[in-house]
Formats: sequence, structure tokens, C-alpha cells
Amino acid sequence: MIAVIALSPALDVTHHVDGVDWAGVNRPASVRAVPGGKGPNVARTLRALGADVLLLGLAGGSTGAAVQGGLQEAGVPAVFTQIAADTRRTFAVVDTRRGEVASFYEPGAQVSAPEYARFVASYAEVLPRCTAVVLSGSVPPGLPATAYAELTLAASSAGVPVVLDTSGEPLLHGASAGPAIVKPNLAELATAAGRDLRWAGRRDQAAVLAAAAQLRELGAHAVVVSLGAHGLIAVTRDGAWHALPEPVPGNPTGAGDAAVAGLAHGLAQGSPWPERLRHAAALGSATAAAPIAGEFATHHYQLALEKLRVRQMEQE
Amino acid sequence: MIAVIALSPALDVTHHVDGVDWAGVNRPASVRAVPGGKGPNVARTLRALGADVLLLGLAGGSTGAAVQGGLQEAGVPAVFTQIAADTRRTFAVVDTRRGEVASFYEPGAQVSAPEYARFVASYAEVLPRCTAVVLSGSVPPGLPATAYAELTLAASSAGVPVVLDTSGEPLLHGASAGPAIVKPNLAELATAAGRDLRWAGRRDQAAVLAAAAQLRELGAHAVVVSLGAHGLIAVTRDGAWHALPEPVPGNPTGAGDAAVAGLAHGLAQGSPWPERLRHAAALGSATAAAPIAGEFATHHYQLALEKLRVRQMEQE
Repeated sequence: MIAVIALSPALDVTHHVDGVDWAGVNRPASVRAVPGGKGPNVARTLRALGADVLLLGLAGGSTGAAVQGGLQEAGVPAVFTQIAADTRRTFAVVDTRRGEVASFYEPGAQVSAPEYARFVASYAEVLPRCTAVVLSGSVPPGLPATAYAELTLAASSAGVPVVLDTSGEPLLHGASAGPAIVKPNLAELATAAGRDLRWAGRRDQAAVLAAAAQLRELGAHAVVVSLGAHGLIAVTRDGAWHALPEPVPGNPTGAGDAAVAGLAHGLAQGSPWPERLRHAAALGSATAAAPIAGEFATHHYQLALEKLRVRQMEQE
Repeated sequence: MIAVIALSPALDVTHHVDGVDWAGVNRPASVRAVPGGKGPNVARTLRALGADVLLLGLAGGSTGAAVQGGLQEAGVPAVFTQIAADTRRTFAVVDTRRGEVASFYEPGAQVSAPEYARFVASYAEVLPRCTAVVLSGSVPPGLPATAYAELTLAASSAGVPVVLDTSGEPLLHGASAGPAIVKPNLAELATAAGRDLRWAGRRDQAAVLAAAAQLRELGAHAVVVSLGAHGLIAVTRDGAWHALPEPVPGNPTGAGDAAVAGLAHGLAQGSPWPERLRHAAALGSATAAAPIAGEFATHHYQLALEKLRVRQMEQE
């Protein structure tokens, strides 16, 4: 079983409006409210892959109830620790005429120490049955920046490998705790490594590999850097690879989460790195090609898999 | 007791953003989620006036639960008939840098015939204890345009006077059922009367009075037209009056609902028309002067009351 941790899930509300009046009243043509945040997205993708997955999260208030209800509808097994604060919403306004999206991210719900202690207890109970753990998303208010590091150490003690997808201090602390994989995007890697990074092609390779090596030196066993349309770079003990997908038009929201799901899936199955990276990159592409964030069509995945090029990179 | 009917309440979510990026990610500085829609606004104002009020509504899903929880917090007694569909949200983005507000109104929740029958039963049960009924807001999907007319007839049978604040077909049907007061704004009155209307001063008086007379001919005992910053015009059996407030800068959202609360309050107390109209217009002004839609400060109300001019109008 793969456990996906959602410390700060969200209710993602999307309004489609044909030509937004930003200083007036709008009546959206369609309204959608689904569980969101990185954890629920990763769990949905794993579920779609047929993996045995359990979402473990924190939820509170009426939006927390909506998140739980939505996951149940989607057939994603989930266990939530109840918190007093209201689970956050995200609002996205899609202007279908201009092709623009405005997003509004509410801050995460405050978590108290006793609430978090109850969550950690339920996590510890589940760990012995896990083949992998995914720690994904920001650390909500009330919890220390070391929260993911502590959850990583607990998993290690139980012999369970961890995929960590976060940023800033929680990424640095978490990497030090020895996760199997950390998955920063390029901006997150740049912040973590304290250097400017860009990806315009192979000439930027050395700088990216060096920054990834810094996170490995901290303690991460492997670093997978997501480059958006430019695919994924994995820097591991066994070598470094770049999985480069065919360009697809589409919605990049959730593509990174789909890649994390693919990495966890491959990790739990023990698949070799080139294959694991291909799987993760194809899931990312297929998710970007889908009209709705966090979903993907099997034929898009198959097509992306065929068209992907994975090349081994020279590490200095 | 004044019963306020909320067939289509909402959860009003407001994000304050300092300079919105309409094509990117925004992190609101403040987030507020409160019960909204005309009925809850009217009920809150009546509660603030110390009136004995009961909100009777339809609510469903997690947003319905949030509306119910919010009313309980605000100390507004409410009885809700549960429906299967999710209660709607409204979403307002206040750009504090530009001083602009974008609003997004989700469509009302679908109501089934058995759900509505249960609501009507609870309404009938409450009527004998009522001194006035307020029917306010749009008719949600699933209900006929005659819904307010039927609720008005039921109140009349119980000897309870009705204040009706709606628009379009439900206003025309409702007026025919003989409510004590209908409260259209100028645009709603124009639509109902089938004529262009504007208010730039006394020269537009004859046209507005004639349009109001049409609604009285349909069956409404009195017509109160809200003119925004230009106050209220009442056309009644006893005469016609214009209550003209001092101009106040502020937020007009909910000012019309506060005026409806004032009208119902005066109706239940049997206060004479000039006084009733003064009360309603002052509540509207005080609500517009408050920073948050649907709330008002007592000193603003007192000040507005002092500064208001009520003049009797000549009816042709």
C-alpha cells in the first residue's frame, strides 16, 4: 500500500466564465468543486493506476467535509484526522474567452499540537503496511518546518521509502532525513541550492545536476527535477537521466503531482530508474493533456510513453 | 415573529487581494465566508434591530452546512429543510489596490418537488405565529415562477402580511397574489412594467409612479422602489413618499436587503408610512456605510435617520 499524506488539502472550486468582468457581477457557465491540493491529486492518480493507495490527511469544517465527500465519490480510500479550523479553498476563475486563469489560494488551516499528535498516531499505525509514503505539499500553519523530516524518519524506521515533494525549509529539513526521492521543480531546486537556475537546453545541464547533487549531499537518495514541458531529470546513485516528452498543449496544473504519483508507483514496484522516470514523465504529459487538472486519459498516457525519449546524462 | 424565507441562500466567500493578477496565482490577504443571499441578509438586519425573527430556508451539502453554522454563530434562529443539492456559493474578489470588486454568482441549488413540499409544510406550521413574512431573492431551479405567489396566498389565508423582494416572472406572479409590499429596484420595476425607467431627479417622478401603479393594479398593496443612493419611493393607498438620504460613500451591497428588513419591521409594528420609509431608508444608508456587506453601525443608522428628508409626492 502507498500512503499519501495530505497535511493541507483543499477544496478546489473552479468557475468557467466567458469573458470575465473584473469590476462587476459574473454568472459562471460552469462550477466545479473537487478535492485538491497535492496529496489528493497524487492519490487520485495512483488510484487511476490501480495502485493500493490510502490518503492520510487533516480536515476540518464544512470544506473539510466537502473534501472527504469528494474523495469518497472518487473512490479514493482516505482516513482524516479532524481539526477545528476550516480546510482551505482554492478558487480558479477560467476566462474561456481570453484563455486566462486567475487563481486564489486561501492560506492553510491552522493545526494544533494535539490534532497533529493524533494524525502522527494514525500515520504510525499505517506505516507497517506501506510499500511507500508520499509527503507532498506545503506544511500548514501551526506545524514546524521539520514536520516532513520527522515523518520521513518515522517511515525510515519502519523500512518504508519516502517520496518528498515540498519546497523551502521543509524541503531542506526533509532532504536531510534521507527520503528515497525528493521532487523539486526548477524554481524550488534553485531556492534550495541557493543559486539561479534555468533550463533552456543541455547547456544548463551542469548547473542543474550540481544543484541536485547538493540535495543528495544533504541526504536525499535521489533527486527528480521537474522542468514543466521539458520533462524530468533524475539524479540518482545509479546515474542521471532526462525524460523528455513530446510537447503537448494543455493545462500544466497537476502534472507535477502526476509525476510524483508515477515516481511513488515505480518506487513501490522497485522498477529501474529509466523505466520509473519514463512512467512518471508520461503521466505528467497525459495529465497536462487532459482538460481537467489532475485527471488523465489512458490513451494520452500510452501515446506519451511511446513518444518519450529518455537519455542518460553524464555526471561530472 | 417575522419569518424570512430563504429559498436560495448562499455561502458568500470574500477574498481581499492587494492588486489582483487576473492571469496568475493570488494569495488573498484575508478570507471571509458568511451566510449570504437576500434572506439571510434581511434576517441578520432584523436580528440586529432586536426583532423576533425566524429564517426558514432550504440548504444542502457542505456549503449548506456552512450557511447553517454561520447563522447559528450570528445568533439568527433558523430552520432549514435539507435538500440533496449543494447550496450555492458567491465569490467576491476585492482588489484593495484598484478599489474594484469582481463577483461570481453560482446558480441556485436545484430543489425537488418532495423537498419543496417539506419546506411548505414547515412554512405552514410557522405562519400562525407570524406578524409578517419576508419573501426575498430569486426562485431556485426546480421551483415554478409562481412559488412566491403561492407562499403569499398561504400567508394571506393566515392573515399575515407579506413583503416581497424579487424580480422578473416571480415578481409579476407574486404581486398578483396581493402582498402588502413589493420592493423592486428601478431596473426590476422597469422590467416588470415593460418600460424604460431612470431616476435623475423629480422630472422622472411621473414615470416611476406610473410604473409602480401598474404593480399596485396587479395586486400589490404598496410598492417601494429602491433607487440606490437616491433613496426609496413608496407608492401606497395612503399616498406616495420619497425618502432621500444624505449621500454616503460606501458599499451598496446589502443596502436593499436592509431596507427590506426595515419595511418588514415597520409593517409588523404597524408604523405609518412616512416613518416606516424613513426607518427603511436609514437602515439602507447605514448598511452602505458599513465596511462589510449586510452589517451596520447604530450610530450610522441614527445619523442617517437625522439627515433623511421624507417628502410627500403628488400622485397624478
